[in-house]
Amino acid sequence: MEGSDSALNHPYSPQNVKLPGFVPVVYSQATILGVYGLASLLVVSLTWLISGRAPKKSKLDRWLMCWWAFTGLTHMILEGYFAFSPEFYKDKTACYLAEVWKEYSKGDSRYAFRDAGVVAVEGLTAVIEGPACLLAVYAIAKGKSYSYVLQLAISLGQLYGTAVYFITAFLEGDHFAASPLYYYEYYIAANASWIVIPTLISIRSWKRICAAVQAQGQKKNKTR
Amino acid sequence: MEGSDSALNHPYSPQNVKLPGFVPVVYSQATILGVYGLASLLVVSLTWLISGRAPKKSKLDRWLMCWWAFTGLTHMILEGYFAFSPEFYKDKTACYLAEVWKEYSKGDSRYAFRDAGVVAVEGLTAVIEGPACLLAVYAIAKGKSYSYVLQLAISLGQLYGTAVYFITAFLEGDHFAASPLYYYEYYIAANASWIVIPTLISIRSWKRICAAVQAQGQKKNKTR
Repeated sequence: MEGSDSALNHPYSPQNVKLPGFVPVVYSQATILGVYGLASLLVVSLTWLISGRAPKKSKLDRWLMCWWAFTGLTHMILEGYFAFSPEFYKDKTACYLAEVWKEYSKGDSRYAFRDAGVVAVEGLTAVIEGPACLLAVYAIAKGKSYSYVLQLAISLGQLYGTAVYFITAFLEGDHFAASPLYYYEYYIAANASWIVIPTLISIRSWKRICAAVQAQGQKKNKTR
Repeated sequence: MEGSDSALNHPYSPQNVKLPGFVPVVYSQATILGVYGLASLLVVSLTWLISGRAPKKSKLDRWLMCWWAFTGLTHMILEGYFAFSPEFYKDKTACYLAEVWKEYSKGDSRYAFRDAGVVAVEGLTAVIEGPACLLAVYAIAKGKSYSYVLQLAISLGQLYGTAVYFITAFLEGDHFAASPLYYYEYYIAANASWIVIPTLISIRSWKRICAAVQAQGQKKNKTR
């Protein structure tokens, strides 16, 4: 099947880029999104239930634990698979993780074409931010003193990564979607959460940290 | 002068990339580095002198103010010029800022060739981190409560940017230096400060923030 005929046989944009050995996606869009949605729902539900057993946790803290568990596992499993699987588009076994990226590449072909900027950001996200997110779940559960600064650091990292992701696409011509529908559905909508939520968490963590530093400063002045 | 003959007439690697309209560097390496060195020395000296007038500033705080003034102006002036001057390599006026990037491109030709990842990182650094660095000078001078969290945020941003910078070069083959000397002198040595110093500042800020949050937590427990 891997001949010169199949070299152009991919749904990604721009079409003139060759992708020898490409194997089309097997599952339907509904199946791929459905599995991700259900798995995420399971992670969030379990985190919500387990966090309810911890004493003195506010609902907001419990929601934050759900977010960090969801985004951490997404970073480590989905994005981790992509970062270290340069030939996922050749997968013939209908492996779910390969299917996800074959499908998502319709919204941003730089994944299938292995754009260095995308791989660098996804690699950093998977290897550094993913485990840090799970540490944030633990830090909130145990009320650790590094909880806010860790949440701020990860959120700023997510925002930096998303900024590089969108700016590089813009600089390279923003012509990587197979259709406007995929552009808005995958490239814009799927990434929007990773702009909105990290922004909100950054603002909250920043304020909490400033309040703590200010309180410490006032205490020092009083004891002088 | 902009003919097919001059298209290959550049010193950058790989040589087969065309750069029509390229105008060679005019100043010597010593002049270009000397001007940057002297300007930096001037900024650091002035910041050191002025910071000495502020009461109760430790020597470390004053050194940090020097660093933030130096790195902030480098981000805004040098990197800001690059980010918004896609045709600097055609400059015929021996403009100093164009000379800097024509020279630095010998260590990393992605600057002359306008690699999207490099432009994205440099743009974010110039527009967001540059002004934030000058705000950090002010924050330390005035003992603002957001001083540590701001220094942490910028330092992590610098580290993230440097990581993307090196990882993308590695993924693209790491063949962008005109010679091993330029590779180590410009690509490695010139960037090393932006790994070492942000790492040290991140660790210090992180520890200070955790100590403040912990002190606040203990105070709350006591007053209960």
